[in-house]
Amino acid sequence: MNAAPVSRRARPAKAPLSREVVIEAGLRILDTAGLAALTMRRVAQELDTGAASLYVYVANRDDLMTGMLDQVLSTVPVPTEGDWRERLTTLVEATIEALGRHEGLALVAFGRVPTTGNALGVIEQMLALLREGGLDPATAAWAVDLIHLHITAEAVDQAEDDGAAAGEITRRLAELPADRFPTIVALREHLLDDDAGTRARWALRALLNGVLATPVPAR
Amino acid sequence: MNAAPVSRRARPAKAPLSREVVIEAGLRILDTAGLAALTMRRVAQELDTGAASLYVYVANRDDLMTGMLDQVLSTVPVPTEGDWRERLTTLVEATIEALGRHEGLALVAFGRVPTTGNALGVIEQMLALLREGGLDPATAAWAVDLIHLHITAEAVDQAEDDGAAAGEITRRLAELPADRFPTIVALREHLLDDDAGTRARWALRALLNGVLATPVPAR
Repeated sequence: MNAAPVSRRARPAKAPLSREVVIEAGLRILDTAGLAALTMRRVAQELDTGAASLYVYVANRDDLMTGMLDQVLSTVPVPTEGDWRERLTTLVEATIEALGRHEGLALVAFGRVPTTGNALGVIEQMLALLREGGLDPATAAWAVDLIHLHITAEAVDQAEDDGAAAGEITRRLAELPADRFPTIVALREHLLDDDAGTRARWALRALLNGVLATPVPAR
Repeated sequence: MNAAPVSRRARPAKAPLSREVVIEAGLRILDTAGLAALTMRRVAQELDTGAASLYVYVANRDDLMTGMLDQVLSTVPVPTEGDWRERLTTLVEATIEALGRHEGLALVAFGRVPTTGNALGVIEQMLALLREGGLDPATAAWAVDLIHLHITAEAVDQAEDDGAAAGEITRRLAELPADRFPTIVALREHLLDDDAGTRARWALRALLNGVLATPVPAR
Protein backbone atom coordinates (compact mmCIF):
# COMPACT_ATOMS: atom_id res chain seq x y z
CA MET A 1 0.00 0.00 0.00
CA ASN A 2 1.84 3.10 -1.22
CA ALA A 3 0.63 6.56 -0.16
CA ALA A 4 -1.55 5.22 2.69
CA PRO A 5 -4.82 7.14 2.82
CA VAL A 6 -5.38 9.26 5.93
CA SER A 7 -8.86 9.73 7.34
CA ARG A 8 -10.37 13.19 7.24
CA ARG A 9 -12.60 12.54 10.22
CA ALA A 10 -11.92 15.39 12.65
CA ARG A 11 -14.01 14.49 15.67
CA PRO A 12 -11.55 14.59 18.59
CA ALA A 13 -13.26 11.69 20.42
CA LYS A 14 -12.02 9.19 17.82
CA ALA A 15 -8.43 8.66 16.78
CA PRO A 16 -8.04 9.13 13.03
CA LEU A 17 -8.03 5.90 11.04
CA SER A 18 -5.01 4.75 9.09
CA ARG A 19 -3.74 1.40 7.82
CA GLU A 20 -1.48 1.20 10.87
CA VAL A 21 -4.35 1.91 13.30
CA VAL A 22 -6.49 -0.79 11.65
CA ILE A 23 -3.61 -3.28 11.80
CA GLU A 24 -2.94 -2.54 15.47
CA ALA A 25 -6.64 -3.08 16.23
CA GLY A 26 -6.46 -6.42 14.41
CA LEU A 27 -3.50 -7.48 16.56
CA ARG A 28 -5.35 -6.50 19.76
CA ILE A 29 -8.34 -8.62 18.76
CA LEU A 30 -6.13 -11.57 17.77
CA ASP A 31 -4.30 -11.44 21.11
CA THR A 32 -7.37 -11.04 23.31
CA ALA A 33 -10.07 -12.99 21.47
CA GLY A 34 -8.25 -15.35 19.08
CA LEU A 35 -8.10 -15.94 15.35
CA ALA A 36 -11.74 -17.01 14.96
CA ALA A 37 -12.89 -13.66 16.42
CA LEU A 38 -10.83 -11.68 13.92
CA THR A 39 -13.42 -10.42 11.44
CA MET A 40 -13.64 -7.09 9.61
CA ARG A 41 -16.85 -6.40 11.54
CA ARG A 42 -15.10 -6.95 14.86
CA VAL A 43 -12.19 -4.68 13.88
CA ALA A 44 -14.72 -1.99 12.89
CA GLN A 45 -16.42 -2.32 16.30
CA GLU A 46 -13.06 -2.05 18.06
CA LEU A 47 -12.41 1.21 16.19
CA ASP A 48 -15.98 2.47 16.69
CA THR A 49 -16.57 2.78 12.95
CA GLY A 50 -18.37 0.94 10.15
CA ALA A 51 -16.88 -2.01 8.31
CA ALA A 52 -17.07 -0.06 5.03
CA SER A 53 -14.65 2.55 6.43
CA LEU A 54 -12.01 -0.15 6.98
CA TYR A 55 -11.87 -1.03 3.31
CA VAL A 56 -10.20 2.30 2.61
CA TYR A 57 -7.17 0.97 4.51
CA VAL A 58 -7.21 -2.82 4.07
CA ALA A 59 -8.59 -4.68 1.05
CA ASN A 60 -10.02 -7.62 3.04
CA ARG A 61 -9.30 -9.89 6.00
CA ASP A 62 -6.43 -11.53 4.11
CA ASP A 63 -4.81 -8.17 3.46
CA LEU A 64 -5.34 -7.27 7.14
CA MET A 65 -3.59 -10.48 8.24
CA THR A 66 -0.71 -9.84 5.83
CA GLY A 67 -0.40 -6.34 7.27
CA MET A 68 -0.42 -7.70 10.82
CA LEU A 69 2.30 -10.18 9.91
CA ASP A 70 4.37 -7.41 8.35
CA GLN A 71 3.82 -5.13 11.37
CA VAL A 72 5.02 -7.84 13.78
CA LEU A 73 8.10 -8.53 11.61
CA SER A 74 9.01 -4.84 11.82
CA THR A 75 9.78 -5.42 15.52
CA VAL A 76 12.51 -7.99 14.79
CA PRO A 77 15.87 -6.31 15.44
CA VAL A 78 18.78 -6.54 12.99
CA PRO A 79 21.44 -8.71 14.70
CA THR A 80 24.91 -7.17 14.89
CA GLU A 81 26.87 -9.46 17.24
CA GLY A 82 28.97 -12.44 16.21
CA ASP A 83 29.79 -14.21 12.97
CA TRP A 84 27.26 -14.95 10.20
CA ARG A 85 26.04 -18.09 11.94
CA GLU A 86 25.46 -16.40 15.29
CA ARG A 87 23.69 -13.48 13.62
CA LEU A 88 21.52 -15.81 11.55
CA THR A 89 20.64 -17.82 14.67
CA THR A 90 19.71 -14.63 16.55
CA LEU A 91 17.61 -13.44 13.61
CA VAL A 92 15.75 -16.74 13.24
CA GLU A 93 15.09 -17.01 16.99
CA ALA A 94 13.86 -13.41 17.21
CA THR A 95 11.54 -13.97 14.24
CA ILE A 96 10.08 -17.15 15.75
CA GLU A 97 9.59 -15.36 19.06
CA ALA A 98 7.89 -12.34 17.47
CA LEU A 99 5.48 -14.53 15.47
CA GLY A 100 4.93 -16.96 18.34
CA ARG A 101 3.62 -14.14 20.53
CA HIS A 102 0.48 -13.89 18.39
CA GLU A 103 -1.49 -17.13 18.09
CA GLY A 104 -2.55 -17.87 14.54
CA LEU A 105 -0.48 -15.15 12.91
CA ALA A 106 2.26 -17.46 11.63
CA LEU A 107 -0.41 -19.54 9.88
CA VAL A 108 -0.75 -16.69 7.39
CA ALA A 109 2.80 -17.31 6.22
CA PHE A 110 2.11 -20.86 4.98
CA GLY A 111 1.72 -21.44 1.29
CA ARG A 112 2.77 -17.98 0.27
CA VAL A 113 6.05 -16.23 -0.46
CA PRO A 114 6.46 -13.07 1.66
CA THR A 115 6.03 -9.94 -0.46
CA THR A 116 5.60 -7.15 2.10
CA GLY A 117 8.48 -4.84 3.04
CA ASN A 118 9.36 -6.11 6.50
CA ALA A 119 8.95 -9.76 5.54
CA LEU A 120 11.25 -9.21 2.54
CA GLY A 121 13.65 -7.37 4.87
CA VAL A 122 14.01 -10.45 7.06
CA ILE A 123 14.47 -12.69 3.97
CA GLU A 124 17.09 -10.27 2.59
CA GLN A 125 19.06 -10.42 5.85
CA MET A 126 18.92 -14.21 5.99
CA LEU A 127 19.98 -14.60 2.37
CA ALA A 128 22.89 -12.19 2.85
CA LEU A 129 24.05 -14.10 5.96
CA LEU A 130 23.83 -17.46 4.15
CA ARG A 131 25.91 -16.03 1.28
CA GLU A 132 28.39 -14.63 3.85
CA GLY A 133 28.55 -18.18 5.26
CA GLY A 134 29.73 -19.44 1.89
CA LEU A 135 26.58 -21.00 0.44
CA ASP A 136 26.35 -20.81 -3.35
CA PRO A 137 23.41 -18.78 -4.79
CA ALA A 138 21.12 -21.75 -5.52
CA THR A 139 21.69 -23.40 -2.15
CA ALA A 140 21.25 -20.09 -0.29
CA ALA A 141 17.91 -19.55 -2.07
CA TRP A 142 16.59 -23.02 -1.28
CA ALA A 143 17.97 -22.79 2.27
CA VAL A 144 16.10 -19.56 2.97
CA ASP A 145 12.93 -21.28 1.79
CA LEU A 146 13.53 -24.17 4.19
CA ILE A 147 14.39 -21.81 7.06
CA HIS A 148 11.27 -19.74 6.34
CA LEU A 149 9.15 -22.89 6.53
CA HIS A 150 10.89 -23.89 9.77
CA ILE A 151 10.35 -20.46 11.35
CA THR A 152 6.65 -20.58 10.45
CA ALA A 153 6.28 -24.10 11.84
CA GLU A 154 8.14 -23.35 15.09
CA ALA A 155 6.10 -20.19 15.65
CA VAL A 156 2.79 -22.01 15.09
CA ASP A 157 3.97 -24.90 17.24
CA GLN A 158 4.98 -22.60 20.11
CA ALA A 159 1.80 -20.53 19.87
CA GLU A 160 -0.40 -23.66 19.89
CA ASP A 161 1.47 -25.50 22.63
CA ASP A 162 -0.67 -24.99 25.72
CA GLY A 163 1.60 -27.04 27.96
CA ALA A 164 -1.47 -28.49 29.68
CA ALA A 165 -1.22 -31.66 27.60
CA ALA A 166 2.24 -32.61 28.92
CA GLY A 167 0.90 -34.72 31.79
CA GLU A 168 -1.48 -36.52 29.47
CA ILE A 169 1.35 -37.33 27.04
CA THR A 170 3.60 -38.64 29.80
CA ARG A 171 0.76 -40.87 31.02
CA ARG A 172 -0.01 -42.05 27.47
CA LEU A 173 3.63 -42.91 26.67
CA ALA A 174 4.01 -44.72 30.01
CA GLU A 175 1.29 -47.19 29.09
CA LEU A 176 2.36 -47.92 25.50
CA PRO A 177 2.92 -51.62 24.76
CA ALA A 178 6.65 -52.28 24.21
CA ASP A 179 5.96 -55.06 21.71
CA ARG A 180 4.13 -52.71 19.34
CA PHE A 181 6.20 -49.54 19.90
CA PRO A 182 9.61 -50.84 21.01
CA THR A 183 11.69 -47.84 19.94
CA ILE A 184 9.29 -45.26 21.37
CA VAL A 185 9.24 -47.11 24.70
CA ALA A 186 13.05 -47.44 24.72
CA LEU A 187 13.58 -43.74 23.96
CA ARG A 188 10.72 -42.48 26.13
CA GLU A 189 12.84 -40.34 28.44
CA HIS A 190 14.44 -38.54 25.48
CA LEU A 191 11.10 -38.01 23.75
CA LEU A 192 9.60 -36.47 26.89
CA ASP A 193 12.59 -34.25 27.55
CA ASP A 194 10.72 -30.96 27.65
CA ASP A 195 13.35 -28.25 27.53
CA ALA A 196 11.77 -26.63 24.47
CA GLY A 197 14.36 -23.84 24.22
CA THR A 198 17.35 -26.20 24.10
CA ARG A 199 15.58 -28.42 21.57
CA ALA A 200 14.72 -25.49 19.33
CA ARG A 201 18.34 -24.27 19.36
CA TRP A 202 19.56 -27.78 18.52
CA ALA A 203 17.02 -28.02 15.68
CA LEU A 204 18.22 -24.78 14.14
CA ARG A 205 21.85 -25.88 14.48
CA ALA A 206 21.00 -29.17 12.75
CA LEU A 207 19.17 -27.29 10.00
CA LEU A 208 22.14 -24.99 9.33
CA ASN A 209 24.59 -27.91 9.40
CA GLY A 210 22.31 -29.66 6.94
CA VAL A 211 22.13 -26.87 4.36
CA LEU A 212 25.89 -26.31 4.65
CA ALA A 213 26.44 -30.01 3.90
CA THR A 214 23.89 -30.24 1.07
CA PRO A 215 24.66 -28.06 -1.96
CA VAL A 216 21.91 -27.89 -4.54
CA PRO A 217 23.05 -29.88 -7.61
CA ALA A 218 24.02 -27.73 -10.59
CA ARG A 219 21.78 -28.03 -13.64
CA MET B 1 -11.13 -45.12 22.05
CA ASN B 2 -11.02 -48.79 22.99
CA ALA B 3 -14.04 -51.00 22.36
CA ALA B 4 -15.64 -48.53 19.91
CA PRO B 5 -19.40 -48.36 20.51
CA VAL B 6 -21.57 -49.67 17.68
CA SER B 7 -24.97 -48.16 16.98
CA ARG B 8 -28.05 -50.25 17.59
CA ARG B 9 -30.06 -48.36 14.99
CA ALA B 10 -31.46 -51.00 12.69
CA ARG B 11 -33.35 -49.01 10.09
CA PRO B 12 -31.94 -50.25 6.77
CA ALA B 13 -32.19 -46.83 5.10
CA LYS B 14 -29.30 -45.49 7.20
CA ALA B 15 -25.86 -47.04 7.51
CA PRO B 16 -25.09 -47.82 11.15
CA LEU B 17 -22.98 -45.22 12.92
CA SER B 18 -19.52 -46.00 14.25
CA ARG B 19 -16.43 -43.95 15.08
CA GLU B 20 -15.03 -44.84 11.65
CA VAL B 21 -18.20 -43.76 9.82
CA VAL B 22 -18.21 -40.43 11.68
CA ILE B 23 -14.53 -39.88 10.87
CA GLU B 24 -15.05 -40.68 7.18
CA ALA B 25 -17.94 -38.19 7.07
CA GLY B 26 -15.65 -35.59 8.65
CA LEU B 27 -13.05 -36.19 5.93
CA ARG B 28 -15.67 -35.87 3.18
CA ILE B 29 -16.81 -32.51 4.57
CA LEU B 30 -13.23 -31.27 4.98
CA ASP B 31 -12.40 -32.19 1.38
CA THR B 32 -15.53 -30.76 -0.20
CA ALA B 33 -16.36 -27.76 1.98
CA GLY B 34 -13.15 -26.89 3.86
CA LEU B 35 -12.04 -26.67 7.47
CA ALA B 36 -14.37 -23.81 8.44
CA ALA B 37 -17.39 -25.91 7.42
CA LEU B 38 -16.33 -28.83 9.60
CA THR B 39 -18.69 -28.61 12.57
CA MET B 40 -20.33 -31.37 14.58
CA ARG B 41 -23.70 -30.12 13.30
CA ARG B 42 -22.56 -30.47 9.70
CA VAL B 43 -21.22 -33.97 10.28
CA ALA B 44 -24.56 -34.91 11.85
CA GLN B 45 -26.40 -33.55 8.79
CA GLU B 46 -24.08 -35.49 6.48
CA LEU B 47 -24.98 -38.67 8.39
CA ASP B 48 -28.67 -37.78 8.59
CA THR B 49 -28.67 -37.92 12.38
CA GLY B 50 -28.66 -35.54 15.36
CA ALA B 51 -25.48 -33.95 16.75
CA ALA B 52 -26.10 -35.65 20.10
CA SER B 53 -25.77 -39.07 18.45
CA LEU B 54 -22.26 -38.22 17.29
CA TYR B 55 -20.99 -37.72 20.82
CA VAL B 56 -21.29 -41.46 21.40
CA TYR B 57 -18.41 -41.88 18.91
CA VAL B 58 -16.32 -38.70 19.13
CA ALA B 59 -15.91 -36.55 22.24
CA ASN B 60 -15.87 -33.21 20.38
CA ARG B 61 -14.60 -31.55 17.20
CA ASP B 62 -11.01 -31.81 18.44
CA ASP B 63 -11.37 -35.54 18.98
CA LEU B 64 -12.96 -35.83 15.53
CA MET B 65 -9.99 -34.04 13.92
CA THR B 66 -7.53 -36.23 15.81
CA GLY B 67 -9.42 -39.28 14.56
CA MET B 68 -9.37 -37.95 11.00
CA LEU B 69 -5.62 -37.39 11.24
CA ASP B 70 -5.13 -40.91 12.56
CA GLN B 71 -7.36 -42.37 9.83
CA VAL B 72 -5.34 -40.62 7.10
CA LEU B 73 -2.06 -41.80 8.63
CA SER B 74 -3.33 -45.40 8.48
CA THR B 75 -3.07 -45.13 4.68
CA VAL B 76 0.71 -44.50 4.75
CA PRO B 77 2.44 -47.69 3.59
CA VAL B 78 5.40 -49.18 5.46
CA PRO B 79 8.44 -48.71 3.18
CA THR B 80 10.44 -51.85 2.47
CA GLU B 81 12.86 -50.88 -0.32
CA GLY B 82 16.39 -49.57 0.16
CA ASP B 83 18.62 -48.69 3.10
CA TRP B 84 17.43 -46.84 6.22
CA ARG B 85 17.79 -43.47 4.56
CA GLU B 86 15.80 -44.39 1.48
CA ARG B 87 13.08 -45.98 3.57
CA LEU B 88 12.91 -42.94 5.89
CA THR B 89 12.71 -40.63 2.87
CA THR B 90 9.90 -42.71 1.35
CA LEU B 91 8.04 -42.73 4.68
CA VAL B 92 8.37 -38.96 5.21
CA GLU B 93 7.29 -38.19 1.63
CA ALA B 94 4.30 -40.54 1.82
CA THR B 95 3.23 -38.97 5.12
CA ILE B 96 3.48 -35.43 3.73
CA GLU B 97 1.51 -36.50 0.67
CA ALA B 98 -1.23 -38.19 2.71
CA LEU B 99 -1.67 -35.17 4.98
CA GLY B 100 -1.32 -32.66 2.15
CA ARG B 101 -4.30 -34.22 0.37
CA HIS B 102 -6.64 -32.82 3.05
CA GLU B 103 -6.45 -29.07 3.52
CA GLY B 104 -6.29 -28.05 7.15
CA LEU B 105 -5.76 -31.53 8.52
CA ALA B 106 -2.03 -31.16 9.17
CA LEU B 107 -2.78 -28.05 11.25
CA VAL B 108 -4.16 -30.41 13.91
CA ALA B 109 -0.69 -31.87 14.40
CA PHE B 110 0.87 -28.58 15.53
CA GLY B 111 1.52 -28.06 19.21
CA ARG B 112 0.71 -31.59 20.18
CA VAL B 113 2.59 -34.86 20.44
CA PRO B 114 0.86 -37.62 18.45
CA THR B 115 -0.81 -40.12 20.77
CA THR B 116 -3.13 -42.11 18.49
CA GLY B 117 -2.20 -45.54 17.20
CA ASN B 118 -1.41 -44.80 13.55
CA ALA B 119 0.42 -41.55 14.37
CA LEU B 120 2.53 -43.41 16.92
CA GLY B 121 3.09 -46.14 14.32
CA VAL B 122 4.66 -43.63 11.93
CA ILE B 123 6.80 -42.16 14.75
CA GLU B 124 7.90 -45.68 15.77
CA GLN B 125 9.01 -46.45 12.20
CA MET B 126 10.92 -43.19 11.88
CA LEU B 127 12.65 -43.62 15.23
CA ALA B 128 13.66 -47.19 14.37
CA LEU B 129 15.08 -46.06 11.00
CA LEU B 130 17.03 -43.20 12.63
CA ARG B 131 18.49 -45.67 15.16
CA GLU B 132 19.32 -48.05 12.28
CA GLY B 133 21.10 -45.08 10.68
CA GLY B 134 23.38 -44.84 13.69
CA LEU B 135 21.86 -41.91 15.60
CA ASP B 136 22.27 -42.14 19.38
CA PRO B 137 19.03 -42.35 21.43
CA ALA B 138 18.86 -38.65 22.40
CA THR B 139 19.61 -37.40 18.88
CA ALA B 140 17.12 -39.84 17.31
CA ALA B 141 14.41 -38.59 19.70
CA TRP B 142 15.05 -34.92 18.96
CA ALA B 143 15.44 -35.66 15.25
CA VAL B 144 12.03 -37.33 15.07
CA ASP B 145 10.56 -34.24 16.71
CA LEU B 146 12.18 -32.00 14.08
CA ILE B 147 11.10 -34.31 11.23
CA HIS B 148 7.54 -34.41 12.61
CA LEU B 149 7.48 -30.59 12.63
CA HIS B 150 8.87 -30.53 9.09
CA ILE B 151 6.27 -33.03 7.82
CA THR B 152 3.47 -30.97 9.36
CA ALA B 153 4.80 -27.74 7.87
CA GLU B 154 5.35 -29.20 4.39
CA ALA B 155 1.86 -30.72 4.38
CA VAL B 156 0.22 -27.43 5.42
CA ASP B 157 2.37 -25.52 2.95
CA GLN B 158 1.45 -27.84 0.08
CA ALA B 159 -2.25 -27.84 0.99
CA GLU B 160 -2.38 -24.03 1.20
CA ASP B 161 -0.33 -23.36 -1.91
CA ASP B 162 -2.90 -22.42 -4.52
CA GLY B 163 -0.33 -21.82 -7.23
CA ALA B 164 -2.37 -18.86 -8.46
CA ALA B 165 -0.10 -16.46 -6.58
CA ALA B 166 3.01 -17.44 -8.57
CA GLY B 167 2.54 -14.80 -11.26
CA GLU B 168 1.95 -12.11 -8.65
CA ILE B 169 5.17 -13.10 -6.82
CA THR B 170 7.22 -13.07 -10.02
CA ARG B 171 5.89 -9.60 -10.80
CA ARG B 172 6.53 -8.37 -7.26
CA LEU B 173 10.12 -9.68 -7.18
CA ALA B 174 10.82 -8.18 -10.61
CA GLU B 175 10.07 -4.67 -9.35
CA LEU B 176 11.99 -4.85 -6.05
CA PRO B 177 14.59 -2.10 -5.62
CA ALA B 178 18.11 -3.59 -5.79
CA ASP B 179 19.51 -1.01 -3.35
CA ARG B 180 17.16 -2.13 -0.58
CA PHE B 181 17.02 -5.88 -1.36
CA PRO B 182 20.33 -6.57 -3.14
CA THR B 183 20.62 -10.27 -2.29
CA ILE B 184 16.99 -11.07 -3.13
CA VAL B 185 17.35 -9.32 -6.48
CA ALA B 186 20.65 -11.08 -7.19
CA LEU B 187 19.22 -14.53 -6.35
CA ARG B 188 15.81 -13.93 -7.91
CA GLU B 189 15.96 -16.74 -10.45
CA HIS B 190 16.86 -19.28 -7.74
CA LEU B 191 14.13 -18.02 -5.42
CA LEU B 192 11.51 -18.33 -8.13
CA ASP B 193 12.63 -21.76 -9.19
CA ASP B 194 9.30 -23.52 -8.81
CA ASP B 195 10.05 -27.22 -9.02
CA ALA B 196 8.40 -27.89 -5.64
CA GLY B 197 9.09 -31.64 -5.71
CA THR B 198 12.84 -31.29 -6.27
CA ARG B 199 13.03 -28.61 -3.58
CA ALA B 200 11.15 -30.74 -1.07
CA ARG B 201 13.46 -33.70 -1.70
CA TRP B 202 16.51 -31.46 -1.27
CA ALA B 203 15.07 -30.04 1.97
CA LEU B 204 14.58 -33.51 3.44
CA ARG B 205 18.11 -34.52 2.39
CA ALA B 206 19.49 -31.40 4.07
CA LEU B 207 17.45 -32.13 7.20
CA LEU B 208 18.79 -35.69 7.44
CA ASN B 209 22.37 -34.57 6.76
CA GLY B 210 21.87 -32.00 9.52
CA VAL B 211 20.67 -34.37 12.22
CA LEU B 212 23.43 -36.86 11.29
CA ALA B 213 26.01 -34.07 11.75
CA THR B 214 24.55 -32.67 14.97
CA PRO B 215 24.56 -35.08 17.92
CA VAL B 216 22.65 -33.86 20.96
CA PRO B 217 25.21 -32.96 23.67
CA ALA B 218 25.38 -35.44 26.57
CA ARG B 219 24.25 -34.08 29.94
